[in-house]
Amino acid sequence: MQLDATTRQRVQTCFDQQGLMQTLGAKLEKVDLGEVILTCDLQEGLTQQNGFFHAGVLSSLLDAACGFAALTQMPVDKNVLSVEFKMNLMKPVTLPHIKVFGKVLQAGRTLVICEGWVTDEAEAKVYTKMMATMIAAGR
Amino acid sequence: MQLDATTRQRVQTCFDQQGLMQTLGAKLEKVDLGEVILTCDLQEGLTQQNGFFHAGVLSSLLDAACGFAALTQMPVDKNVLSVEFKMNLMKPVTLPHIKVFGKVLQAGRTLVICEGWVTDEAEAKVYTKMMATMIAAGR
Amino acid sequence: MQLDATTRQRVQTCFDQQGLMQTLGAKLEKVDLGEVILTCDLQEGLTQQNGFFHAGVLSSLLDAACGFAALTQMPVDKNVLSVEFKMNLMKPVTLPHIKVFGKVLQAGRTLVICEGWVTDEAEAKVYTKMMATMIAAGR
Amino acid sequence: MQLDATTRQRVQTCFDQQGLMQTLGAKLEKVDLGEVILTCDLQEGLTQQNGFFHAGVLSSLLDAACGFAALTQMPVDKNVLSVEFKMNLMKPVTLPHIKVFGKVLQAGRTLVICEGWVTDEAEAKVYTKMMATMIAAGR
Repeated sequence: MQLDATTRQRVQTCFDQQGLMQTLGAKLEKVDLGEVILTCDLQEGLTQQNGFFHAGVLSSLLDAACGFAALTQMPVDKNVLSVEFKMNLMKPVTLPHIKVFGKVLQAGRTLVICEGWVTDEAEAKVYTKMMATMIAAGR
Repeated sequence: MQLDATTRQRVQTCFDQQGLMQTLGAKLEKVDLGEVILTCDLQEGLTQQNGFFHAGVLSSLLDAACGFAALTQMPVDKNVLSVEFKMNLMKPVTLPHIKVFGKVLQAGRTLVICEGWVTDEAEAKVYTKMMATMIAAGR
Repeated sequence: MQLDATTRQRVQTCFDQQGLMQTLGAKLEKVDLGEVILTCDLQEGLTQQNGFFHAGVLSSLLDAACGFAALTQMPVDKNVLSVEFKMNLMKPVTLPHIKVFGKVLQAGRTLVICEGWVTDEAEAKVYTKMMATMIAAGR
Repeated sequence: MQLDATTRQRVQTCFDQQGLMQTLGAKLEKVDLGEVILTCDLQEGLTQQNGFFHAGVLSSLLDAACGFAALTQMPVDKNVLSVEFKMNLMKPVTLPHIKVFGKVLQAGRTLVICEGWVTDEAEAKVYTKMMATMIAAGR
């Protein structure tokens, strides 16, 4: 579903305010209502000991994508904070480039439950999956 | 329990090979058998939108600390990979400096179950807690 | 995908051996390759304090459905054991009858990663979602 | 910390209202502020396919113990509901009798984060561990 410009800008602003997104070289590729896609290229500074994407980079991007997806369905005076998340690493992410999806499963007044996943550029395989709980907090 | 020099070096080598640890400015403060402590200072490049430590930085450091703790109890010809982890963010981490603990709860032949937590410098409060499953993989 | 009779029987036998399935009044509705559906009717003995399905009943059925789904993709000399699972309760399950799905996301030699979810009879809404890790163990 | 009689009764009432507790033969052994212990004896109706405690029984008891622990720290007009939980099964629970602990890690106005674990009678070993998020809901 298409987003109004204000909500899109709100996500962009939140993305820009997260210093970590710049550190990881993440890009905000798409923002829809309840759905966000980030992308990221592998760099030396993002690796685990075998030279693959570090699980921590994946969890950072998944948590961020889920948070931004939640933000698109929150009242404008609210800030989104992560309550908890869980991630399964199904295959080692031996890719030079990843797409990271965040999607709202259930949006309540206080809590928003999201799901995230990591794929290759062609979206052919899911490498990693997250479930996350976000909370609408006062700014 | 004190570690032999070889195992300590093995963890140090794994830490040095993880490009992400340098990107985050993490330090390997302590390595014991089944227990590791990392430290990290807040920098602009590690923040979420309110200027606090990003949940992704916390999960990266917790995952790494748990992995290093698991490595101290694995055969020397094995590599450690993350299978899954779950993290609860109990309080916003509004600290300039954190300690990140990783500890083995149960070490089997294949899987190692770990627990991690984040505290302030004085170890007075636990801000975040992780449970993680690591697997011993061939190198 | 259709299952051969031997594998179907193997799941049925495992279901029959789990005393808890009978206690909960669960039924094995469907078994396909990597996919299983259980059903369950609400009874007084399955409730939490408001008279709804207890979260523990949901986790029991989800864990079982995920385990049976994993079993359909394991070598015949292997037994399936739960390593860990995580569940989000997205809506209170105020239904008289539920369908519980278990599905394999990734089947490796040792670990099988599954996803499970609970719906109403018509499969119109997802009430609860699980991610689970199963291990192939010797019998 | 000792509990006043009213709060203790409140937990007992909630326990009695959960039909599942009677089905599983659970007993409410101890109730302190933010800490609850349940016990349970193995019966044929509680088993997985090898005759051990079913993971679903463990998650049911852990979820309940965490919920009761949370209830001791909630305002009297509030009901406790499970938002999510995650459990690691560290060893197969080949015991005839278990103790199930639930403990509050962090009690906020809306969310209460708990930890639970399963031990043998002598509390010598931890077999299973849970992290859970509970929410204070209107009655």
